[in-house]
Amino acid sequence: MELLDAFRWRYATKKYDSRKKIDQTLVDKILEAAWIAPTSSGLQPFEVFVITNQELKEKIVSETNAQELVAQCSHLLVFAAWDNYTAERIDKIYAHITAGREQASDRYNAYTDRLKNKYLNRPTELNFEHAARQSYIAFSFAMAEAASLRVDCTPMEGFLNEELDKLLQLPEKGLKSVTMLPLGYRDEKNDWLLHLKKVRHPFEDFITIIE
Amino acid sequence: MELLDAFRWRYATKKYDSRKKIDQTLVDKILEAAWIAPTSSGLQPFEVFVITNQELKEKIVSETNAQELVAQCSHLLVFAAWDNYTAERIDKIYAHITAGREQASDRYNAYTDRLKNKYLNRPTELNFEHAARQSYIAFSFAMAEAASLRVDCTPMEGFLNEELDKLLQLPEKGLKSVTMLPLGYRDEKNDWLLHLKKVRHPFEDFITIIE
Repeated sequence: MELLDAFRWRYATKKYDSRKKIDQTLVDKILEAAWIAPTSSGLQPFEVFVITNQELKEKIVSETNAQELVAQCSHLLVFAAWDNYTAERIDKIYAHITAGREQASDRYNAYTDRLKNKYLNRPTELNFEHAARQSYIAFSFAMAEAASLRVDCTPMEGFLNEELDKLLQLPEKGLKSVTMLPLGYRDEKNDWLLHLKKVRHPFEDFITIIE
Repeated sequence: MELLDAFRWRYATKKYDSRKKIDQTLVDKILEAAWIAPTSSGLQPFEVFVITNQELKEKIVSETNAQELVAQCSHLLVFAAWDNYTAERIDKIYAHITAGREQASDRYNAYTDRLKNKYLNRPTELNFEHAARQSYIAFSFAMAEAASLRVDCTPMEGFLNEELDKLLQLPEKGLKSVTMLPLGYRDEKNDWLLHLKKVRHPFEDFITIIE
């Protein structure tokens, strides 16, 4: 199986067959793909919420301009980024890294000092944006993994972030929602998007080769 | 082959074997993965530059805090996002979509009016940030595809964007660089990062399950 075939197969599913649930073994693989994704300086400045609670999924529909697919899907992932970088957060991950690599705990002190000097002296909003960008890598790795397993998904951004944050109590955790990723199986008979051709900019306009 | 094995195999390569070049068929697959990636409203608000010119790669080293891997790699990709959304850009892609789907050219007019109403009334910087986030999906799909083909890569952000933009004449094209992705083959003997354990936040801290 080629990954590119999976990328060609995938589309932003608009209607799920709500009777079909994803096996836990597949969900675990999708989450591991998100977890193992690379991030700037290895800080991994985000978390993932995995929602199967039907009542909560239905509440979230109202934060998404009434997109029913959020309630129909099998598992709803929410990617939420750190609201800011802090010395504590940076130290915590590097303590974990040195422990995991069996290195001296001060092995990366000069490096984390540089990180703190950079991040702690710039606006919160810029740091959040940087963290949000990192979460897109994990979000995309989860999509790629899902496609490779022939699990459908729907990348979503345009929802009421602040309302969702309250619902999931994200401010208390220093997090802000960035994207959602409903996962499940397409309703082949009723999804209007399924048979529409995937169109992209002409490839030759998209790519510039400098030899 | 499981994609997850490819994700476990990959790492941010720090030293390339500059004698090893990537076959064009593999490069084409990596570029197609970036090209086919989903984006908000299908606008695909970015372009990709593929640099093999050795002189140019060497110049770019100086925009990256002297990271020699940019010169050593086989192909250097630069992801550059639209500096802003414009009516022309939105109309152009939707003209292309309706043509590709053999639909009436005004099929999505109500939708593109809503997009214009949203994007053309907010700050340039917010629009660029939104476009930049979209480019991360393509950037990540390219990384996933590369890993699946066992091609190494190095996701890079912290470079001198404005200097690189000038070098690639991006302002004239209404683009701003976001990320770089050197591609090639690891120098197994000399890459200090290759044998260091990949460490992430404890999985149980990273994931919250709401059942």
